[in-house]
Amino acid sequence: MKRIAIDAMGGENAPEAIIEAVLKVKDELSQTQFILFGDADLIRQKLGNNYDQKRIQVVATQSIIGDEEEPVKAIRSKKDSSMVQAAQFVKAGKADALLSLGNTGALLASGIFIIGRIKGIPRPGLMPTLPAKDYHHAFDIIDVGANAQSKPEYLLKWAQMASFYASKIRKIENPRVALLNNGAESDKGDDLHQGAYNLLQDSNLHFIGNIEGNELMIGKADVVVTDGFTGNAALKSIEGMASVLLHSLKDSLLHNGLLTKLGAALIKKAVADLRAKYDTARYGGAVFLGLKAPVVKTHGRSDWCPIYYTLKQIDTILDEELIKIFTEEFAQK
Amino acid sequence: MKRIAIDAMGGENAPEAIIEAVLKVKDELSQTQFILFGDADLIRQKLGNNYDQKRIQVVATQSIIGDEEEPVKAIRSKKDSSMVQAAQFVKAGKADALLSLGNTGALLASGIFIIGRIKGIPRPGLMPTLPAKDYHHAFDIIDVGANAQSKPEYLLKWAQMASFYASKIRKIENPRVALLNNGAESDKGDDLHQGAYNLLQDSNLHFIGNIEGNELMIGKADVVVTDGFTGNAALKSIEGMASVLLHSLKDSLLHNGLLTKLGAALIKKAVADLRAKYDTARYGGAVFLGLKAPVVKTHGRSDWCPIYYTLKQIDTILDEELIKIFTEEFAQK
Repeated sequence: MKRIAIDAMGGENAPEAIIEAVLKVKDELSQTQFILFGDADLIRQKLGNNYDQKRIQVVATQSIIGDEEEPVKAIRSKKDSSMVQAAQFVKAGKADALLSLGNTGALLASGIFIIGRIKGIPRPGLMPTLPAKDYHHAFDIIDVGANAQSKPEYLLKWAQMASFYASKIRKIENPRVALLNNGAESDKGDDLHQGAYNLLQDSNLHFIGNIEGNELMIGKADVVVTDGFTGNAALKSIEGMASVLLHSLKDSLLHNGLLTKLGAALIKKAVADLRAKYDTARYGGAVFLGLKAPVVKTHGRSDWCPIYYTLKQIDTILDEELIKIFTEEFAQK
Repeated sequence: MKRIAIDAMGGENAPEAIIEAVLKVKDELSQTQFILFGDADLIRQKLGNNYDQKRIQVVATQSIIGDEEEPVKAIRSKKDSSMVQAAQFVKAGKADALLSLGNTGALLASGIFIIGRIKGIPRPGLMPTLPAKDYHHAFDIIDVGANAQSKPEYLLKWAQMASFYASKIRKIENPRVALLNNGAESDKGDDLHQGAYNLLQDSNLHFIGNIEGNELMIGKADVVVTDGFTGNAALKSIEGMASVLLHSLKDSLLHNGLLTKLGAALIKKAVADLRAKYDTARYGGAVFLGLKAPVVKTHGRSDWCPIYYTLKQIDTILDEELIKIFTEEFAQK
C-alpha cells in the first residue's frame, strides 16, 4: 500500500477542499492510503460517513504554520504543526510522500531539514508543470524559487531530474531540455548560465539550447531549466500577466454596453475553453525534486480539483519509483 | 532646433513606417529636425512631395545591420551602415538623439562605443515603459537586458535615472521605486538583490521595497529596478503570455460554432479596448539610459504609430534636458 501524508490544514480552503479531493480520488487510487494531519475532530466531522478507516488515517496535530511565517523558524518552533508532523511521518518511513497547500518556504524547509536530500543532489529544486499553447503540450520548469542563489552544477542536476520526470510521469519520449537564457546563441547569459549551458551541452540529455521568456508558453521544450531567482520572476510574471489580462477582458465585456454583454454571453463556452487550456490543475502540484521522498505543493487557493490531480500525480510518482531512480542515478556520481 | 538622428533602415517596415511617422509628427514637433539615415534614393522617393528640406534631412548610407548579426562585430565592420552613421552624427554633435528599430544589441553597442557613457554611470541600462492594469498607470522597468551581469551599484544608478525619467518625462510626482525580487521581505534574494535593496534603502529615492513578478502589471510601482538578466526574462515572459493568451482567445472564438462567432462580433469593441489598454505604443520606445545622448529603440515590428510616439518621447526628453540632469547629477559622485 502506498501512503501519502497530507497536511490537511494548509491553504485557504482547508480542510474541506483537501478532504473532498481525497474522497473523490480514493476509489481510483485503490492501492493508496491517505494520512490526514490536522485538527482531528474537525477532519473526522467533515469526513462523516465517508471515514473509511482502512484507507484514510487521521493524525491529530496541534498547530498550523501560517503563510506569513518565516519558514525555518516556523518548522523549528511548531514541531506539533500539521506540516511538520506530516514530514516527520515520511522521515520515519510511515508515509511515502508529502502533500501540502501551506507555506511554500516552510514546506521546502521541511523537505530539506526533515525528509532530507538525495545523495548527489546538492540543492533540491521546485518544479511545476505548466500548460503550453497547444492543449496537448506542457512543460516542466525547474527551479522556480527554492534557491535564491544557484550554480551551474545545480542546474544540470535539476535538468536531469526534470527530464526523468517528464519521461516517467508525463510519458514523454526523449524530453527536449532547454535553458532559460537572454538570447538564443550559445554564448548568451552571465557566468551562471554560460556555465550551465556548457554542462547541459556535455550531458546526455536531449538539450536543445537556449530558450527566451517569450518562448516558454509556445511549447518549444518539454523541460526548461533555470536558476531559482530567474525562474521565480518568469513564472510569477506569466501568472500576473494572465490574471491581469483575464480580469481586464471580463471588465471590458461588462462595461461596453448591452450588445457587448450579449456577446459575452454568447462566447461563454469559448472563454471556458480558454480557461481550461491554461488551467494548471490537471498537471498536479509543484514537485520539490531532489528529496528522499516526493514533496508536492498545491496552490493555497485551490479547491478540490487541483488537489485531486495532485494526489493522482503523487500516486504515479510512487508507482514509477522516481525517487529510487534518482537515488541510483545520482548516488554513484 | 532639436535634431533627431533616425536609422531609417531598421525594422520590418523600414523605411516606409519610419517616414510615415516622421511626416505625421512633423507639424506637432515644429522645433525639431529629423535626420534620416539610409538608402537616400528610396527615402527621397517615399518622401515624395513631403520632402520639406528645412525639417527633414536625408543622409545616404551604404549598408544595413541585420537583426541576426553579432552586435559588436557588426558595428565595427559596417561603419557605413545607417545605424552606425546615425550614431556618429550624434557623437559629432550634429544630432541630439538617436532612434532605431534595428538590432537591439548593435544599438546598445553603438550607444556605448560610439556615443559614450555619462561619467559616473558604470553601465547604461535599457528601460521600456509598460502599461499597468489601470489604464492611467504605467511603469518604467530597468534594466531589461542591456547587461547580462549586474552589480548592486548598477541597479542603484538605474533606479535613480529611471526615477528622474518618471518624474520629468512622465510627470509623476515622487515616483515609487521598487526592486524586482523573489519575495516581499527585505532579506529576500541573492547577494546581488540584497545588496541592491540596501543601496536603494539608503538612497533618497522613494523606495517602496521589493515587488514580485506577479505584481508588475498591477501598477504597484512607477519604477521597477531589476538586473538585466532577470528583467529580460520577466519582460519576455509577460510579452509571451499576453501574445499566447490573445491568440488563444481568438482561436477559441473562431472554433466554437456560429453563436460564438456572433458573440465575437458583438464584443469587438471590448477586445479593441483591451488591446488599447495593453498597447505599449503610446509610451514610446525603450530608452537606453546612461549615455551622452538619448538612444531609443522601438520594436522592429512597429508600424508608424509606435514610432510616432517614440519621436514625441524623444522630443520631450530633449525639452526636459534629461541628459544634462544626469550629467550634473552623476558626475560629482
